Amino acid sequence: MFESAELGHKIDKSTYDAEVPRLREALLDAQFDLAKKAKFPVIILIGGVDGAGRGETVNLLNEWMDPRFIETHGMGKPSDEEMERPMMWRFWRALPPKGKIGLFLGSWYTWPILNRAMGITKAAELDQSLERAKRLEKMLTDEGALLIKFWLHLSKEKQETRLKLLENNPKTRWRVTKRDWDHFKRYDKFLTIHESVIRHTSTAEAPWIVIEGADSRYRSLTVGKIILEAISKRLADSDKKKELAVRAAPLLPSIDKLSILKTLDLAQKLDKKKFEASLEKYQGKLALLTRDTRFKDITVIAVFEGNDAAGKGGSIRRITGSVDARQYQVIPIAAPTEEERAQPYLWRFWRHVPRKGRITIFDRSWYGRVLVERVENFCTEADWMRAYLEINDFEAQLVRHKIVVVKFWLAISQDEQLRRFEERKKTGFKRFKITEEDWRNREKWDEYEQAICDMVDRTSTSVAPWTLVEANDKNIARIKVLKTLCRRIESAMNAVESK
Amino acid sequence: MFESAELGHKIDKSTYDAEVPRLREALLDAQFDLAKKAKFPVIILIGGVDGAGRGETVNLLNEWMDPRFIETHGMGKPSDEEMERPMMWRFWRALPPKGKIGLFLGSWYTWPILNRAMGITKAAELDQSLERAKRLEKMLTDEGALLIKFWLHLSKEKQETRLKLLENNPKTRWRVTKRDWDHFKRYDKFLTIHESVIRHTSTAEAPWIVIEGADSRYRSLTVGKIILEAISKRLADSDKKKELAVRAAPLLPSIDKLSILKTLDLAQKLDKKKFEASLEKYQGKLALLTRDTRFKDITVIAVFEGNDAAGKGGSIRRITGSVDARQYQVIPIAAPTEEERAQPYLWRFWRHVPRKGRITIFDRSWYGRVLVERVENFCTEADWMRAYLEINDFEAQLVRHKIVVVKFWLAISQDEQLRRFEERKKTGFKRFKITEEDWRNREKWDEYEQAICDMVDRTSTSVAPWTLVEANDKNIARIKVLKTLCRRIESAMNAVESK
Repeated sequence: MFESAELGHKIDKSTYDAEVPRLREALLDAQFDLAKKAKFPVIILIGGVDGAGRGETVNLLNEWMDPRFIETHGMGKPSDEEMERPMMWRFWRALPPKGKIGLFLGSWYTWPILNRAMGITKAAELDQSLERAKRLEKMLTDEGALLIKFWLHLSKEKQETRLKLLENNPKTRWRVTKRDWDHFKRYDKFLTIHESVIRHTSTAEAPWIVIEGADSRYRSLTVGKIILEAISKRLADSDKKKELAVRAAPLLPSIDKLSILKTLDLAQKLDKKKFEASLEKYQGKLALLTRDTRFKDITVIAVFEGNDAAGKGGSIRRITGSVDARQYQVIPIAAPTEEERAQPYLWRFWRHVPRKGRITIFDRSWYGRVLVERVENFCTEADWMRAYLEINDFEAQLVRHKIVVVKFWLAISQDEQLRRFEERKKTGFKRFKITEEDWRNREKWDEYEQAICDMVDRTSTSVAPWTLVEANDKNIARIKVLKTLCRRIESAMNAVESK
Repeated sequence: MFESAELGHKIDKSTYDAEVPRLREALLDAQFDLAKKAKFPVIILIGGVDGAGRGETVNLLNEWMDPRFIETHGMGKPSDEEMERPMMWRFWRALPPKGKIGLFLGSWYTWPILNRAMGITKAAELDQSLERAKRLEKMLTDEGALLIKFWLHLSKEKQETRLKLLENNPKTRWRVTKRDWDHFKRYDKFLTIHESVIRHTSTAEAPWIVIEGADSRYRSLTVGKIILEAISKRLADSDKKKELAVRAAPLLPSIDKLSILKTLDLAQKLDKKKFEASLEKYQGKLALLTRDTRFKDITVIAVFEGNDAAGKGGSIRRITGSVDARQYQVIPIAAPTEEERAQPYLWRFWRHVPRKGRITIFDRSWYGRVLVERVENFCTEADWMRAYLEINDFEAQLVRHKIVVVKFWLAISQDEQLRRFEERKKTGFKRFKITEEDWRNREKWDEYEQAICDMVDRTSTSVAPWTLVEANDKNIARIKVLKTLCRRIESAMNAVESK
């Protein structure tokens, strides 16, 4: 793996001085084109061993390129803010938008490698981390990102020389710490792990590029040229977007027309009196639960999806009505903003992942991808087919971080929907709630039903199950939502307690 | 995950009787088209819980379809033959060729699930197995296979009913074993594992299709219709082969023109006398090693690659000269046969993986993919880019099964090659060894050199390292090959011993 990066590569000063001005000019041109077209983001990871020039490379690239279109992220120890979210959150928030370059010093590989080298994790755990990294990278490249992964390498001998050199120079002495020497002592252990990381995560979409780090001129020119080539090549072919063929068996509706939605008993009713008693009970319970000291360690994400006019807003208000306003946030999901369109589709949801002790309620959610975007052909079949895995992966990351994920599908019948649409048309203050689009969606009832069933089948998991809510009667729906939410919070609290 | 498969799906007899003849006819037509075009293989996995009708489904499909184009594989306990090879070998040997359907009752998921349910493995190990399964499936679908994965499900209640029903009927009593009831007792444990398997391995290319297994008519019609749809859809678009865009940064030659090949000292020489002494020593050693009783537990795969006329044959003969003819096999790799062309490209190598106590020598190998196929454009950039990962994965499977993988690159200079080509032209009995193609390849020397360096950098791993052999002097080369082989066998033996 490291053969070519231990040969003693070198570039002499005169060659370097002759080449750099041309390279810089070309890089600036490429950057300008990239920003102008804004078709894809460029994500550059700079990894490697201590003393191989990772920091210098980042500095140099910042010097060579236009700082307006490049963002540098030194991924050191996570902040408190970051520790309260799943591990990948800090990377999601740092992703560059289309047209820009994100330069990462340290990446999703840094901590898995360190933890393994220090004996904190086992080999199988490292493998799991690497698979998570691969899934993230696959999602990024599937979403169109250009991902360039540099690994700066030094042989054991060269690393020692380099550390001593830095240490002996008064100007650079501060850069060599005890930690560097500790790592050096474990060189062979690290090497084995690095090899395994590079071998397992050099995919066709995002292979590692290993570069010898000893000679700064060789290293800098190589990194610069590869970035230039990669961006130029992608700019040249990004216009003819190739649609990927889906090679999977198609998802078909059930042959006996029976579906989970059809089995719901939508006729059930709850009279006003019983409703009010239940409402008081469960709102009271929710109020106590969210004010319990143990709630400080709990994070809740509640997702509301449902047919148009199914009453999502009403149900949400019954929740927020009993929770302290500082504790919750409601995120209505409409068309994505310009900033959001410049990012992978899950980005707009990752940015709202709450801290501990908070509840975030999504009024519509990431499930738009496999519902409206699927039915209306806003994305390709390949895109929504891979979304099931990406969504499960996203939610598994939330759950692994002890976030309670509660997902509601509010179901009404076609007749009930019509009744509500007509009512909205008539009632002045409700008229804003009904649009042409609602009527159009209604015509595709069967297609939506198929998409909903596939969604539940493919994303209702033991860790993040869907709750189907019979919503023809608003009272029934509101109580079921409150009750489910209380139950899920309670069991999460008990899990905290019993630890 | 299993919501829709617990609804009590049913198809009544008259509907079934009306639909089946049409379905069978359509399936036979599709099968015929598939065989005629022979563009891709169809791989169908039938998984699921006991009593959900897996066996019946396989039988029915065999009854419905043309047995000439369908191969059924009941993947029970592996045979002795199979136990001596890596786990995946039995699946590779069973893969259907293009134009045929392979029906698998039991799959690469069976044992990982069982081992986890029985507490033999941990969750992290299950994850590792699933990742291996995903890599295999990705390779299969990347190679064009249509992969359909059925999961036949029963609720706990239904499973109990079904097992009792089978048990109470004298005709089917034999089908219910103690093992079935043992598994039933662990229903919940299995369910959790099944859910995790389906969640993690439902990829966009090969999602699981979960089907309720209780009603045989519903089950059979559903399976039949999905197979029909999937094959028809793929037949319809398999003609317009879409080339996948490579989104990775391009692999560039080193900017200082220094490469691992250029650092080899090709001028070194070994005189005849010293050579003969060394030859005797190492051939003797190899003879002893391969006749040692501990060698019975060792498997060796030696790979020979090198420039044209680098002397691979001569080096191989120096090995085989000292090994018992029953112990070794030399596999010369030329253009693939018709049968091999109908399979994923690694298939022709998997079929030659030896049993224990044997040595298999490949004269050229799977590395053709990233050498000649890359340089001559015999495959797309996407194909050879993913090959590095696939090859590393293949070799890792061999090594995990304690196979010693020794890889030699025999390097000669451009001048030396010319000298040998000229000599071959002149010498009558060597004339067959030189073709027009050799001269053509020679013109692409630089491109090949780049491909060789990338190959070594990306596939030389600590578990399966490349040995670069300076081969301008044949004596030097032959001794280095023998010495390396002996050393690798010795250390594998010592590892066995110290266990």
